Amino acid sequence: MMNVIGEKQGEIKLVNGGVSTPTGYLSGGLHCGIRREKPDLGWLISEVPADAFAVYTKNIFQAAPLKVTQASLSVAQKLQGIIVNSGNANACTGEQGLTDAYQMRELMADRLQIDQHYVAVASTGVIGEFLPMGKINKGIQAIEFKQGSVPLFETAILTTDTKEKKIAVQIEVDGKTVTIGGAAKGSGMINPNMATMLGFITTDAVVDPNVLEQELKTQTDQSFNMITVDGDTSTNDMVIVMANGLAGNEMLDHAHPDLPVFVKALSHVFQFLAKEIARDGEGATKLIEVNVEGTETEEAARQIAKAVISSNLVKTAIHGADANWGRIITAIGYSGVQFEPNEVTVKIGDKTVVENGLPKPFDEAELKSILEQDEVKLYINMGSSHYSALGWGCDLSYEYIRINALYRT
Amino acid sequence: MMNVIGEKQGEIKLVNGGVSTPTGYLSGGLHCGIRREKPDLGWLISEVPADAFAVYTKNIFQAAPLKVTQASLSVAQKLQGIIVNSGNANACTGEQGLTDAYQMRELMADRLQIDQHYVAVASTGVIGEFLPMGKINKGIQAIEFKQGSVPLFETAILTTDTKEKKIAVQIEVDGKTVTIGGAAKGSGMINPNMATMLGFITTDAVVDPNVLEQELKTQTDQSFNMITVDGDTSTNDMVIVMANGLAGNEMLDHAHPDLPVFVKALSHVFQFLAKEIARDGEGATKLIEVNVEGTETEEAARQIAKAVISSNLVKTAIHGADANWGRIITAIGYSGVQFEPNEVTVKIGDKTVVENGLPKPFDEAELKSILEQDEVKLYINMGSSHYSALGWGCDLSYEYIRINALYRT
Repeated sequence: MMNVIGEKQGEIKLVNGGVSTPTGYLSGGLHCGIRREKPDLGWLISEVPADAFAVYTKNIFQAAPLKVTQASLSVAQKLQGIIVNSGNANACTGEQGLTDAYQMRELMADRLQIDQHYVAVASTGVIGEFLPMGKINKGIQAIEFKQGSVPLFETAILTTDTKEKKIAVQIEVDGKTVTIGGAAKGSGMINPNMATMLGFITTDAVVDPNVLEQELKTQTDQSFNMITVDGDTSTNDMVIVMANGLAGNEMLDHAHPDLPVFVKALSHVFQFLAKEIARDGEGATKLIEVNVEGTETEEAARQIAKAVISSNLVKTAIHGADANWGRIITAIGYSGVQFEPNEVTVKIGDKTVVENGLPKPFDEAELKSILEQDEVKLYINMGSSHYSALGWGCDLSYEYIRINALYRT
Repeated sequence: MMNVIGEKQGEIKLVNGGVSTPTGYLSGGLHCGIRREKPDLGWLISEVPADAFAVYTKNIFQAAPLKVTQASLSVAQKLQGIIVNSGNANACTGEQGLTDAYQMRELMADRLQIDQHYVAVASTGVIGEFLPMGKINKGIQAIEFKQGSVPLFETAILTTDTKEKKIAVQIEVDGKTVTIGGAAKGSGMINPNMATMLGFITTDAVVDPNVLEQELKTQTDQSFNMITVDGDTSTNDMVIVMANGLAGNEMLDHAHPDLPVFVKALSHVFQFLAKEIARDGEGATKLIEVNVEGTETEEAARQIAKAVISSNLVKTAIHGADANWGRIITAIGYSGVQFEPNEVTVKIGDKTVVENGLPKPFDEAELKSILEQDEVKLYINMGSSHYSALGWGCDLSYEYIRINALYRT
């Protein structure tokens, strides 16, 4: 997916890297024994405390590490280190789980010799089992705080993911190079209500904290909150953004002329990671992108995109490369949005299959070849109003069933 | 499923039969050529016009036959005949579709020599193709209005269903035998928002029309609206109830002492048919029943039941007979209902797996054997409040993917 590395994309340059590419960040990962063989403990640090914000799952059974991260951020809204384990979610673990998450934070803070509130904690994996604190302790003690090979952090945070999701981009601000890095994990329990994944975004930019906080929310809404793999919102999902200011640019606030390009770069990072998660959904063989236009509100467009991308029937039809547009229409119809059926146009790729609410004849073979691609784009026009939304998902395959009928055992 | 035929169940006697078992009804079905071989045209008539009510899909792309049935009922709120085809949904077919549905009604009314508004029309099958009116005309002309073998109507209305869903029950009212019959279809596009299936309920009872209308809504909410197979709400779903009054009882109104038993019998018929649909969900190998108790409103209980029964992760875990209760907890947590996590108790069968929000150790082998049954019951207690709800669904299997990746082609 990094096939545009080094190319210019507008003013945004993609570079080979990840969360530790911006100036002043280090990251790594190791195997501490929670998972059988794979790396299962990832760490990310900044030379200096960075402004930091996070968004959390809306699931009522919010896991212990999220509560601890919230507690950390509430003190100074800054972070210097993040410690993440995979293989165990530390969710539904009550008081003991909370104690464990606090201890994980303390161990990391001790290693870094920093205040505990500068440390965030994240966990992902099986629900309802206590963290093996002995292993985590040993793992944290074993960390060597020097830059490892780039994807080690990105690999250590994975569960059923088949590959790491990482990106780094650069822009110029006041003649200085500003870098944004990102890593994410998520494959199952992925749905549109935030949640369901971990995302870590780092930058060396000097950014107005209010702008950073607002953009975290806006970009999350337009990326991670617009993907679905299975419609399940996990107990552990969280996106954290850090800005350590080491690029030395003038502060990016609403008055700064380069704010738009920074936001564009940030948006690219968020959407890239979100799409990578959808593409790597459990059992997925295809990325599906839904583009909804012409609605009366942005929320309406989002609702329709989510309904289509969440439909098992749409997902299986695309898996089978079957141009069964009736299922797309059906999902639009039950999305909860009010509209005029006879203003709806649907395209699969660039081929119109429904025009003004009525079927339009198409070449089956041509549609089949579009649906057999690795990326399938659906285009839905709801009328002449001006709002739109993008959503991403994946097909539903035998492999999804295999993975999920057997996950825990 | 008719293994209790002839036994008493409280005051409700189950009898072998279906929609035409109540006095004064006839039904049948034939093959008119929409489907390759199977019966695809079903008819149901009453000797006399019956009080009739219907509920319809909330999908905005409501199919033409539903509009025609609405038009019929709006005249006198009575029906004498119903004509149903399978294999073609007559949905997304615009003006032509509406003309066809009206013509289908007219052909049936002409054969019966009754006013058109006494006829209801229903269709189910592929979306976006025009009805083959020549075949339907020939089919309607070929109907012999005499009682055929009982399941012919019940069979002709099926699509991907693997078996017919039918029931008949009897009660005593004022010393007269009152019979309620029912038939339904639905296998895919089954979800909790009404819709997604066809249901036909007949009775020879004399019933206050207001009671009949109210009970149609109440019973539908507690049965067909509480099942989900894939979360997709179809364009064509409809439940029709008819009461022709030929049992000759005193009118069942709120003052009648036997109203409760009538309602109980009606409820049994609705829930039986709903469960049969869930059990026969596409690719299903198991019926899942979710019983939610202790919520502050009925709606909250319904919301939680629906979230759990709709979760692909729960459905695949149960398919794999994996006691992965974390997925149940996760679905409860994102259901949208507010609650105290530490008041939640979850049982799989009669085994408690979560108590007051915390995992409770269990015997894996014992749980596995519970999960390997044909019917799996989940019991969720949310606290000490007094509302509850039941929901039904099915597991998610390889076979679901196979059916739906290949349905249209």
